Amino acid sequence: MTGFAFDIFATDGKARRGRVTTAHGTFETPGFMATATGATVKAMTADAVRATGAELAICNTYHLMLRPTAERVAALGGLHKFMDWPGPIVTDSGGFQVMSLSKLRKISEKGVTFRSHIDGAAYELTPERSMKIQNLLDSDITMAFDECTPHPATHDEAAQSMRMSMRWAERCVAAFERRPGYALFGINQGSTYPDLRHESAEKLNALPLDGYGIGGLAVGEGQEIMFATLNETVPALKPEKPRYLMGVGKPDDIVGAVMRGVDMFDCVMPTRSGRTGQAFTRRGTVNIRNARHLDDPRPLDETCGCVACTRHSRAYLHHLFRAEEMLGPMLLTAHNVQYYQDLMGGLRRAIEDKRLEDFAATFAADQARGDIDAL
Amino acid sequence: MTGFAFDIFATDGKARRGRVTTAHGTFETPGFMATATGATVKAMTADAVRATGAELAICNTYHLMLRPTAERVAALGGLHKFMDWPGPIVTDSGGFQVMSLSKLRKISEKGVTFRSHIDGAAYELTPERSMKIQNLLDSDITMAFDECTPHPATHDEAAQSMRMSMRWAERCVAAFERRPGYALFGINQGSTYPDLRHESAEKLNALPLDGYGIGGLAVGEGQEIMFATLNETVPALKPEKPRYLMGVGKPDDIVGAVMRGVDMFDCVMPTRSGRTGQAFTRRGTVNIRNARHLDDPRPLDETCGCVACTRHSRAYLHHLFRAEEMLGPMLLTAHNVQYYQDLMGGLRRAIEDKRLEDFAATFAADQARGDIDAL
Repeated sequence: MTGFAFDIFATDGKARRGRVTTAHGTFETPGFMATATGATVKAMTADAVRATGAELAICNTYHLMLRPTAERVAALGGLHKFMDWPGPIVTDSGGFQVMSLSKLRKISEKGVTFRSHIDGAAYELTPERSMKIQNLLDSDITMAFDECTPHPATHDEAAQSMRMSMRWAERCVAAFERRPGYALFGINQGSTYPDLRHESAEKLNALPLDGYGIGGLAVGEGQEIMFATLNETVPALKPEKPRYLMGVGKPDDIVGAVMRGVDMFDCVMPTRSGRTGQAFTRRGTVNIRNARHLDDPRPLDETCGCVACTRHSRAYLHHLFRAEEMLGPMLLTAHNVQYYQDLMGGLRRAIEDKRLEDFAATFAADQARGDIDAL
Repeated sequence: MTGFAFDIFATDGKARRGRVTTAHGTFETPGFMATATGATVKAMTADAVRATGAELAICNTYHLMLRPTAERVAALGGLHKFMDWPGPIVTDSGGFQVMSLSKLRKISEKGVTFRSHIDGAAYELTPERSMKIQNLLDSDITMAFDECTPHPATHDEAAQSMRMSMRWAERCVAAFERRPGYALFGINQGSTYPDLRHESAEKLNALPLDGYGIGGLAVGEGQEIMFATLNETVPALKPEKPRYLMGVGKPDDIVGAVMRGVDMFDCVMPTRSGRTGQAFTRRGTVNIRNARHLDDPRPLDETCGCVACTRHSRAYLHHLFRAEEMLGPMLLTAHNVQYYQDLMGGLRRAIEDKRLEDFAATFAADQARGDIDAL
């Protein structure tokens, strides 16, 4: 088995075109993960996800530790087999979800105790336990257990939170079981304060980590501040390791972050929006529930190769949502996942050809045009 | 364009092995339709439905007249294009659903007035209007508009209801627009009374119809009475035309009905059961929500070639249902549709080989064994 590797073979400005090698194969960067929180990309079969070009899936420690449990997944042969995803898998550490979903949580230096949002049962999650769970799940890329600093936070709050996360990162490094092809990523924190982001980066750079998450963004600070924070943070991280902007984002967030040197992304937006009838297209977002689509025989996006766009009209998609048919969320999810993968493919080719600025300008102009005129 | 045709090329006892030719291609009989009530097989893409071997889809006049409306489907190019189903389509006439779903309905000799179960809007459905709607939908096989006689019904009630349906059938024949490859089926009624079923058959045989639905069964009378009624009804219908037992049924209902000379079936059972976690297998039904599957690495049915059985464990399917993930209903629906198609394929081959009795005995023995032992 080859070791974990990150090869950068082209750059354009700060953007990098690379390939990550893991124990379960490779993925191209910049890349967008398939969000498989509970060991399934919601409303898609694994085959359908693969057909969009997605190479990397992300599952969630918090959700899977509660149900079906990490021990059970391990006994069943690990996540790859469980969810029919032989390719690379990232697992989030559970830190973010334990804060946003669980009940009666108490944070201490040791870790977090909480009650499950499903049945109220008591759990403890520590850096060591998170490493163990991600190991049991057989995750290729384990994320350090951290506290996602809430927004807004004072400088003092952000510093205390970040420093605890950095102490936890050291414990994650100690607890992580090294295996060829398996990686541990630290997570940069520090809210929107450049000095704290720098301090966090220095601490992570001093640890034997394989890549870096950038956490605590896309939590309400707005795109301008997020980009400003990336401008400070990304150059402070070791350049030879992959950078993963966690939980981001909208298509224009991704384009801007790639131009600032981010390599990896995940976000629930394509799948969650797909379930509620919002489609991402080359010409901005489309709410397929809108009555303007009632009689429209045209595809959602004539440039898209997904099943929703090549086989069906907007009128049909509208009908499915109006009639609350499951196929509506299924088709729109497939479309959105395809859109995001196509966007990443476009970004990758643009970096290879050193025309990323042109690509971004065309992208922005297309988005600004808005949806095709109603019939 | 070739005309509508039914070719019988093998028989075994009363069972027939045939092929129906329509304006949109052929389907093999005995055959089970894909239930696409609202212009979608719930929880499956059209490609996934086709992959199971299903050749014929059934849509519903009542549902589609309310939403998105037949006129809209016609303007969009008809049902085949709308729902990405280039193959043959049957449409139910709306008679059954108007009785079971609509509000404030009033039945008269002219037809039925009712209020939509969706928004309370007032509608009228008559034999003539039902023919028109099914024409607008571009259905290959139009079903006559009838009253599905409630069960139980006195002889008098059943006679009156059946005779009105037969008068309506004459009006359907008059209103149906003949086109090459398009068929009109009459519907035999008469509740569980042999004399009424015979009277209905004689009236239908006298009309220029392309096939026969057998209606008013699987409405609570039980399998024994249903089979007894088929024993009376099927031989009374013109043998050279296809016979379609409407809304049936469980796997053993289908095997018994094929042995009694039925050629076509539709039922919501495989799709509806799939959404609630009930799987049909060679060894009977399995409730995947049962805790016995929590740690079971084995497939639902090792003999099945569907995506649920070839890619996933019972433990994974159980997890999806427990976590209320959409992929659970999607995979179990795909499995159940595959199971029904495989059952029909087995029945067709058995008739060709004149070993239908053996097939039915093995089928019954396998079903009686029940599910594989828990681990």
